Amino acid sequence: MADVNKVVLAYSGGLDTSVILKWLQETYACEVVTFTADLGQGEEVEPARAKARTLGVKEIYIEDLREEFVRDFVFPMFRANAIYEGEYLLGTSIARPLIAKRLVEIANQTGADAVSHGATGKGNDQVRFELGAYALKPGIKVIAPWREWDLTSRERLLAYAEQHAIPIERHGKKSPYSMDANLLHISYEGGILEDPWAEAEESMWRWSVAPEQAPDQPVYIELSFAQGDVVALDGEAMSPATVLATLNKIGGAHGIGRLDIVENRYVGMKSRGCYETPGGTILLKAHRAIESITLDREAAHLKDELMPRYASLIYNGYWWSPERRMLQSMIDASQAPVNGVVRLKLYKGNVSVVGRKSDDSLFDASIATFEDDAGAYDQKDAAGFIKLNALRMRIAAARGRSA
Amino acid sequence: MADVNKVVLAYSGGLDTSVILKWLQETYACEVVTFTADLGQGEEVEPARAKARTLGVKEIYIEDLREEFVRDFVFPMFRANAIYEGEYLLGTSIARPLIAKRLVEIANQTGADAVSHGATGKGNDQVRFELGAYALKPGIKVIAPWREWDLTSRERLLAYAEQHAIPIERHGKKSPYSMDANLLHISYEGGILEDPWAEAEESMWRWSVAPEQAPDQPVYIELSFAQGDVVALDGEAMSPATVLATLNKIGGAHGIGRLDIVENRYVGMKSRGCYETPGGTILLKAHRAIESITLDREAAHLKDELMPRYASLIYNGYWWSPERRMLQSMIDASQAPVNGVVRLKLYKGNVSVVGRKSDDSLFDASIATFEDDAGAYDQKDAAGFIKLNALRMRIAAARGRSA
Amino acid sequence: MADVNKVVLAYSGGLDTSVILKWLQETYACEVVTFTADLGQGEEVEPARAKARTLGVKEIYIEDLREEFVRDFVFPMFRANAIYEGEYLLGTSIARPLIAKRLVEIANQTGADAVSHGATGKGNDQVRFELGAYALKPGIKVIAPWREWDLTSRERLLAYAEQHAIPIERHGKKSPYSMDANLLHISYEGGILEDPWAEAEESMWRWSVAPEQAPDQPVYIELSFAQGDVVALDGEAMSPATVLATLNKIGGAHGIGRLDIVENRYVGMKSRGCYETPGGTILLKAHRAIESITLDREAAHLKDELMPRYASLIYNGYWWSPERRMLQSMIDASQAPVNGVVRLKLYKGNVSVVGRKSDDSLFDASIATFEDDAGAYDQKDAAGFIKLNALRMRIAAARGRSA
Amino acid sequence: MADVNKVVLAYSGGLDTSVILKWLQETYACEVVTFTADLGQGEEVEPARAKARTLGVKEIYIEDLREEFVRDFVFPMFRANAIYEGEYLLGTSIARPLIAKRLVEIANQTGADAVSHGATGKGNDQVRFELGAYALKPGIKVIAPWREWDLTSRERLLAYAEQHAIPIERHGKKSPYSMDANLLHISYEGGILEDPWAEAEESMWRWSVAPEQAPDQPVYIELSFAQGDVVALDGEAMSPATVLATLNKIGGAHGIGRLDIVENRYVGMKSRGCYETPGGTILLKAHRAIESITLDREAAHLKDELMPRYASLIYNGYWWSPERRMLQSMIDASQAPVNGVVRLKLYKGNVSVVGRKSDDSLFDASIATFEDDAGAYDQKDAAGFIKLNALRMRIAAARGRSA
Repeated sequence: MADVNKVVLAYSGGLDTSVILKWLQETYACEVVTFTADLGQGEEVEPARAKARTLGVKEIYIEDLREEFVRDFVFPMFRANAIYEGEYLLGTSIARPLIAKRLVEIANQTGADAVSHGATGKGNDQVRFELGAYALKPGIKVIAPWREWDLTSRERLLAYAEQHAIPIERHGKKSPYSMDANLLHISYEGGILEDPWAEAEESMWRWSVAPEQAPDQPVYIELSFAQGDVVALDGEAMSPATVLATLNKIGGAHGIGRLDIVENRYVGMKSRGCYETPGGTILLKAHRAIESITLDREAAHLKDELMPRYASLIYNGYWWSPERRMLQSMIDASQAPVNGVVRLKLYKGNVSVVGRKSDDSLFDASIATFEDDAGAYDQKDAAGFIKLNALRMRIAAARGRSA
Repeated sequence: MADVNKVVLAYSGGLDTSVILKWLQETYACEVVTFTADLGQGEEVEPARAKARTLGVKEIYIEDLREEFVRDFVFPMFRANAIYEGEYLLGTSIARPLIAKRLVEIANQTGADAVSHGATGKGNDQVRFELGAYALKPGIKVIAPWREWDLTSRERLLAYAEQHAIPIERHGKKSPYSMDANLLHISYEGGILEDPWAEAEESMWRWSVAPEQAPDQPVYIELSFAQGDVVALDGEAMSPATVLATLNKIGGAHGIGRLDIVENRYVGMKSRGCYETPGGTILLKAHRAIESITLDREAAHLKDELMPRYASLIYNGYWWSPERRMLQSMIDASQAPVNGVVRLKLYKGNVSVVGRKSDDSLFDASIATFEDDAGAYDQKDAAGFIKLNALRMRIAAARGRSA
Repeated sequence: MADVNKVVLAYSGGLDTSVILKWLQETYACEVVTFTADLGQGEEVEPARAKARTLGVKEIYIEDLREEFVRDFVFPMFRANAIYEGEYLLGTSIARPLIAKRLVEIANQTGADAVSHGATGKGNDQVRFELGAYALKPGIKVIAPWREWDLTSRERLLAYAEQHAIPIERHGKKSPYSMDANLLHISYEGGILEDPWAEAEESMWRWSVAPEQAPDQPVYIELSFAQGDVVALDGEAMSPATVLATLNKIGGAHGIGRLDIVENRYVGMKSRGCYETPGGTILLKAHRAIESITLDREAAHLKDELMPRYASLIYNGYWWSPERRMLQSMIDASQAPVNGVVRLKLYKGNVSVVGRKSDDSLFDASIATFEDDAGAYDQKDAAGFIKLNALRMRIAAARGRSA
Repeated sequence: MADVNKVVLAYSGGLDTSVILKWLQETYACEVVTFTADLGQGEEVEPARAKARTLGVKEIYIEDLREEFVRDFVFPMFRANAIYEGEYLLGTSIARPLIAKRLVEIANQTGADAVSHGATGKGNDQVRFELGAYALKPGIKVIAPWREWDLTSRERLLAYAEQHAIPIERHGKKSPYSMDANLLHISYEGGILEDPWAEAEESMWRWSVAPEQAPDQPVYIELSFAQGDVVALDGEAMSPATVLATLNKIGGAHGIGRLDIVENRYVGMKSRGCYETPGGTILLKAHRAIESITLDREAAHLKDELMPRYASLIYNGYWWSPERRMLQSMIDASQAPVNGVVRLKLYKGNVSVVGRKSDDSLFDASIATFEDDAGAYDQKDAAGFIKLNALRMRIAAARGRSA
């Protein structure tokens, strides 16, 4: 067992990380620093302070990181139109690098030599936390209790809690799902979802109404972009976190952003997950729409071809890697002209783009028109264009190559 | 002007291609063979026979290509989950290579030395027709009247038609949109769509009801896949064309598959297009879902990374190119295990996957479970996995590289 | 410690794997089956039989796999023009999947429940052996003694050998380098090479003369290709292994194929390696040359863009993965027309292509000529080709986008 | 024929562009401005002044662009390790964007409304000149005489020259090859090279001795890099153009940098080209070597995977495109740590890396060593690393998927 003096724990204030807190103190005979962040998960973070104190913690960090989260993590990712495996908007993945960064920074401030987290040994989050920590502080020790301890069943965990006088909240039934939430999304795993043929229960979803329950009238909104990021909603300037929170509220009310998928974890297994990402779903659609009129074709295609790789990097926990930053340089270099307004219709689960305009638009109606274009485009050029693009295939066909 | 003896014309029977027919006869003093195909566009093709006869055509080809179209073009493309620019399902693009192939085959049968089509000099379709024709018959002459003639306005075209006694159908108002349809989709361009800020009028859409008008009750369907292709709907075996036609009907009734985008044409301009692809929208969602449980992670990611390139090849008219066929080999090589059933919920514009099952499933609940896995997975392995994946970043950080 | 009944050991007959053999018997109290393969490493394999017998082995497999190795592993890889990190011809990497396959097959035949190898815990070879074994027999146990035992220094290893009466050959000095050889190459690591600034000693190299010592006269050879593979040398038909062995001899005599690089291992560290790949160096150059006249441009470019990924897969040990096989399908689909003859000049370390010809050549002198081409190519087509390719950039520039 | 007032001509001072000069004056009745650049082609540029004056040119631009050429075009390209089709170092391609830029700038300065060049309608250079011109000045007219005039044979050209008193230099025999040269390379096309089976004559090569004629003693050099660019040779600081010129001299003297290939032109045909790139060949090898110890693995692999696309962009003339600049942003973002010294041995055509060192080295001998590493690396981590990387393949194999 490694020699540890002080460990910074990513602490939610809930039962599991409270047990971890105590277990760290006992097992490593070390001091524990707690770090609790408000990333928009929708639960109060301040109560974690009293709980940590009760457990004997002296250094307690409780922080509101919502703006930093959206500005420096969510928005850069949306510039890439990142989607993992064609569906998943990376809501959990994108929060981990920020937590890893703060864990390391607090370790530096408090002189801690280790960090710890409550992610299991089967999931992606352990990888995301730890790759981040190692990339930012190579000598750091990482303690992942779920990979080490013998509290491998719910019963044992509860028994440990009782033994150590850790309060177990018994108000209401415990959710059968493993959940994670932040300003970008809420996720559900486990329970009946472990059967991929079983439909998710309506009662599971927390952030959005069912499309069936959404209003019968659509709502139209306008999103303004500057350099690829949303800066205003319906003409009103908003901070990154505010705009995302607002879109979550509107989107959720209209039944937008539910997703039910089987995804491939980095550790090698498939897993079923359900997600609600109301604001992100709107944001992605809108960003693509503003790019559609402002971005050069080949710039857009280059982004599209590299997007799956960029998304995998984030999913797999490589936010702090040099290759993610290289790709980000390339993506950001494309976003200067991505300015303008997108108009969207939200209705019972649907997000439809109905208009887009920009002072940086490359859409040229005088060229694209079916009407007379006054010579803006010479149709005869197309003959040569096609002829030369066909030349290699014509030569091959003339040599008898079957097409 | 090239010397032409006989030309095969892609003939719809409508006004424009009737004018082209006459213009070819006059301009090139050549015989015209007409080719009219039923690709599921929803209009009768047989009336083209009488029209062609009236215009003096002796060799008339009228063919039902619906099964070949879906089986050999649409389905292979959907194995790739192909989407152009993140949105467009390539409905027009995928029909052109089949028409090009038949034009060339008929030219070979009839001894024609040229082919002709009614696509304009500004669009993608001219490229798709002609690249196909050149790839399949390198010495073929291609006549693209819209790039050659001086009938550059509607007025001149109508005048020419009247002069040459070509019947102009005047029942109802002419649509303000340029449209194209086949079993996969119907498309709209032109008119008010030339302003990308203007919302499409509800009256424009032809294949689907508005989500607002769709039934208040969802419908659930099950699609069965064999080697990546749909083979049955709700347990009933169906031919490729039948399944797509049926999905169009169901999807359209539920307001599914409308799309409004600005896309980048291969000839260099941006253009606004609206599309209805009810069946294709369902098909894409279902195919991804069945792949999600049957396809290896890296196989799926490789497909995802190459998909944009594959989609561009089809969009740009390179179906008959060696590189498209190479990619198809790779894609098809992955589809043997893509078998099973996907359950979907259709409701007012939404297609939601609610279940998927397969005898070839790689989803292993005994490993993925949050419950005790009886040793199927050793969580301690994750520590080494992360440590070695982090090693290069740790070395860099230890050298002072800022992450 | 896992319960093991019988283990198949990749056995070279040398000291290290003899110690492993004994250690396995002692540590696991299990039966050991030895497998020794001739992959063209240039050492007799038959002596391994007596050594294994002395150590009490009853089931001894000694096999000549040279033809299978070149035909089914080396040649498919060369169809891809695979090079890792711009330089390395993957000589060690490509042999491992074949050994993994035979280990598993022998385990199946002999009823063994484990396999074992002599690769260390720092290198790539452990990964290659084990990924192969797991992919081919998921329940197999893998024993990697270097990761388990405490014989972590040369001294301890020798002491163990003496204790257990394992003969230590003392003829000549032990090489300071860690070496690996097969028909494709010989490699050197360790010793002074661990300083990347130190030049390799001339005495290290074993397969090739220094360019300075090579003949003063060049030699010309002709290689004939069929479907991407070499089938004849100077017009004489040769089996895969024979052609590679012959090219090694000729190439080595002319000082061809030495390489000195720092490469990135899959386990996360950089390492210095020196390689001699005489035949492979010639083969790669020749294959590119025959492709240059027989392969379509875009087919070639697609191969080039995916090559680094394909090479990484082989380097990292993923030969038996679905994604490698998908890429191989794509590559092989391109090789049908890769037929013809390449003429090369070999001189003091240089391999120069001086001629290439093929019945499947796409080189068309009548089009490419600087002389009059009799109308085979209409130069005016180029104007339209350029105009439309420039259109998107012209529109952007007209909007004030700085290029 | 377009209405042209003043045209800027890329003027070499040779016969062909002198004929073009006169032909432009005659055909377009316009003023001609000449632009002659020293890009290191090895011919005096000053004599072009008198010739242009004789032909009545009033505005004559003669410029030494060597430093700008190497600093802003060659060096950025080498940061990418760009090679087209596995072999070609892009010597001609990389000079064209600079010429296009100066043509446009001079057009702006002199109020010209057109530019002109002497590239033929079959080659890549017309595309490179014109895409650059259009991207930088969208309304510019481009005149490509070789695509327009009827001087389609050498005889007609000479006759035109005589008619118009254009001096034809008859000293020595005209080379049978079409050549292009600048500081990066000299190229040869045409003549007997149009037969790809014919070996290039020794007399053709101008910049390098044959390896057979090179010194019998090798020479060692050291190249120092800063942020990916060479800044010193053997410890002596040098400007970009000086270092390249010096490497050309040394490399040429040692028979380095000859290349004989069949390449795929952007306009659709294959063509045979021979190239001498002595300095560039050394530079590429050295840059890869310094990257090998200073660049992160995944950063290097990302560069390698995108390199073919980057190289094609330059080959095809898209230097001034947004996608080339996006890729450049990504590449340049990786080069900050690419600092250090590479030691190379040059001998009769061979460039061998024999050492590399850097303060930014990521090579860590204490980890990579075959000797005892004092715990820097825990070999047991490899077991978990392999197990999880194998997991997806094990699950598939357990389901009966054949590997």
